[in-house]
Amino acid sequence: MKSFRRELWFNVPSRRGFVNITPQVRQCLRESGIKEGLLLVNAMHITSSVFINDDESGLHADYEAWLEKLAPHAPTGQYKHNLSGEDNADAHLKRQVMGREVVVAITAGELDFGPWEAIFYGEFDGRRRKRVLVKIIGE
Amino acid sequence: MKSFRRELWFNVPSRRGFVNITPQVRQCLRESGIKEGLLLVNAMHITSSVFINDDESGLHADYEAWLEKLAPHAPTGQYKHNLSGEDNADAHLKRQVMGREVVVAITAGELDFGPWEAIFYGEFDGRRRKRVLVKIIGE
Amino acid sequence: MKSFRRELWFNVPSRRGFVNITPQVRQCLRESGIKEGLLLVNAMHITSSVFINDDESGLHADYEAWLEKLAPHAPTGQYKHNLSGEDNADAHLKRQVMGREVVVAITAGELDFGPWEAIFYGEFDGRRRKRVLVKIIGE
Repeated sequence: MKSFRRELWFNVPSRRGFVNITPQVRQCLRESGIKEGLLLVNAMHITSSVFINDDESGLHADYEAWLEKLAPHAPTGQYKHNLSGEDNADAHLKRQVMGREVVVAITAGELDFGPWEAIFYGEFDGRRRKRVLVKIIGE
Repeated sequence: MKSFRRELWFNVPSRRGFVNITPQVRQCLRESGIKEGLLLVNAMHITSSVFINDDESGLHADYEAWLEKLAPHAPTGQYKHNLSGEDNADAHLKRQVMGREVVVAITAGELDFGPWEAIFYGEFDGRRRKRVLVKIIGE
Repeated sequence: MKSFRRELWFNVPSRRGFVNITPQVRQCLRESGIKEGLLLVNAMHITSSVFINDDESGLHADYEAWLEKLAPHAPTGQYKHNLSGEDNADAHLKRQVMGREVVVAITAGELDFGPWEAIFYGEFDGRRRKRVLVKIIGE
């Protein structure tokens, strides 16, 4: 069994944003030399997500509005977590809706994807450097 | 390390629906000959889900009503994604709540499940042929 | 390839609650002797979750209030699932928001975690003994 590990770093300049990280993940897979196996991509922070969906800016605006409706940022005082001086409780909630991680099948050395699948980093408390972990196991 | 790959195809005749795919996944496992490992089942489309829950029609009706409340289909004009001529923005949102994939432990050649666990395909934009990927790795 | 399997049992005395299970999972990893691979932790019941987030009591109170707003327990008659004599339909919904499972990278014999990641058992229909599965594969 082979394994591969890489951290990807991001600094989203706004509080929230979505970044297509498929090219970086594909590059990891190439470097790993793994042809058959499983690939895990997860946020290493608890106020961000890794998820798979469409690379379409209208949809991303819809996600932003929808998550803000399900778990509004303001008023920040509505959350007990923010009593500690934080203002990011909503980010912990939004991340649960969008998920921490994805697991992708590796087949013949490629991400085994349907036609529109792309991997995104979802930031809900940005404006600082944060990490994503890529781990691949297989042969 | 052994690996196994299979695509399962579905054509749900309505816009939304849930299909118990546990028998097909179990059949994949049998054919793979893998006794110890991990099994990934994921939607290959970004408007459908694979999830694990109960095979109970009342619950499925509750999921349908609840998801429609959290991310209503109509009016379709409320979503920017639909400006491109699509009408399925809500399906991209519902799929995030229900999830893209499940990972299941394989032990002694069986799906290592609790008593009520069953695997479902969740369709949120049906009436066409769509795929699910089963990938198994192990020994 | 090595594999390891363990069931962890919990009896949360209230209907809902969150339990930090990171120490038990770490103990499983130590016993497994696996240094590189993937670790799966999943609820074996369909009314509970395993998820990764912050070990902060204010945040857990926020999760409780938020999930109760997204999928209220009462009135129980609002759910078709409860017509069968159950009163836990809301638990099946809450579990979909929080997720069934997490997959964690194993690197150099450790859970490959960011600084604040911790693994939680999320109970939404407690007051009885329920199980979590830990499965590890690797070398």
